[in-house]
Amino acid sequence: MRVMGIDCGSEYTGFGVVEDDAQAHLHCRTAGAVRLNARDPLEAKLAIIYRELCAVIREFEPEIVAIEDVFYAVNAKSALKLGHVRGVAMLAVAECGLRVAAYAPLAVKSAVVGYGKAEKCQVQAMVARLLNLPSLPEPPDVADALAIAICHLHTSATQSRMRAKA
Amino acid sequence: MRVMGIDCGSEYTGFGVVEDDAQAHLHCRTAGAVRLNARDPLEAKLAIIYRELCAVIREFEPEIVAIEDVFYAVNAKSALKLGHVRGVAMLAVAECGLRVAAYAPLAVKSAVVGYGKAEKCQVQAMVARLLNLPSLPEPPDVADALAIAICHLHTSATQSRMRAKA
Repeated sequence: MRVMGIDCGSEYTGFGVVEDDAQAHLHCRTAGAVRLNARDPLEAKLAIIYRELCAVIREFEPEIVAIEDVFYAVNAKSALKLGHVRGVAMLAVAECGLRVAAYAPLAVKSAVVGYGKAEKCQVQAMVARLLNLPSLPEPPDVADALAIAICHLHTSATQSRMRAKA
Repeated sequence: MRVMGIDCGSEYTGFGVVEDDAQAHLHCRTAGAVRLNARDPLEAKLAIIYRELCAVIREFEPEIVAIEDVFYAVNAKSALKLGHVRGVAMLAVAECGLRVAAYAPLAVKSAVVGYGKAEKCQVQAMVARLLNLPSLPEPPDVADALAIAICHLHTSATQSRMRAKA
């Protein structure tokens, strides 16, 4: 199964495509971040995110896209900023004919580090190890995107095993 | 000048296109609201908003699109919801090659009713009067969208007069 993860942010939006093979080994197909120019008008920034995410989806053809659920620890100002980017990312997925799977940040960290309150650097280190990357994914938004994709792969694998047992 | 106004909301997203003539009379070219089905997944809702707004922009060819600025009176949960829709609306504008002009809610109400804390029904009544509409624009989101367009037309007219005097 090939899964794309997206980590939305107002400076960087990370993305990564991860695939598992028959031995349940994970492989990173691509990873990167859309960097926004703080001086661009918001609508221009959103257009860049939209086009880049659509281009990655079309090139790497994931079956599904996983994204983080957002909870309400952030304040209203940050939530609105993040909402703009998250809305456009979800639109890119829908316009490419795919579904969105959303995971709580706690579930993503637990899936990758085994601890829901892991630090960013722990997520980077574990993602690099699980995907056998030559270096830590930078900026951390790239590691977060890969972690979200891995979380979806783990969750799907567990669900398949549970279905097989039932 | 022909201006489109968009009023973003998580249930209805209102839109309206308003034009002024050489006598500064205002004419409504189109107005309506995109209604979302609460049971649809968020990405499907966002795709409907995006396509409908793009279709209106392409059919009625406004020169610019006006949208409300959002401030922080709302809580983080509503801000995130609104952000999703607002991001997609701004993307539609950018993808159609237009610019976004943002106005504070207070400025919009002042431009239309003459009072920044006007009630929704006062905005509906004044918009209907200014545009010579046969009935009140419903739902109120449609009136709000038309009010935002009128606010931009008033602001531009004032700025032109100031430039002419200078």
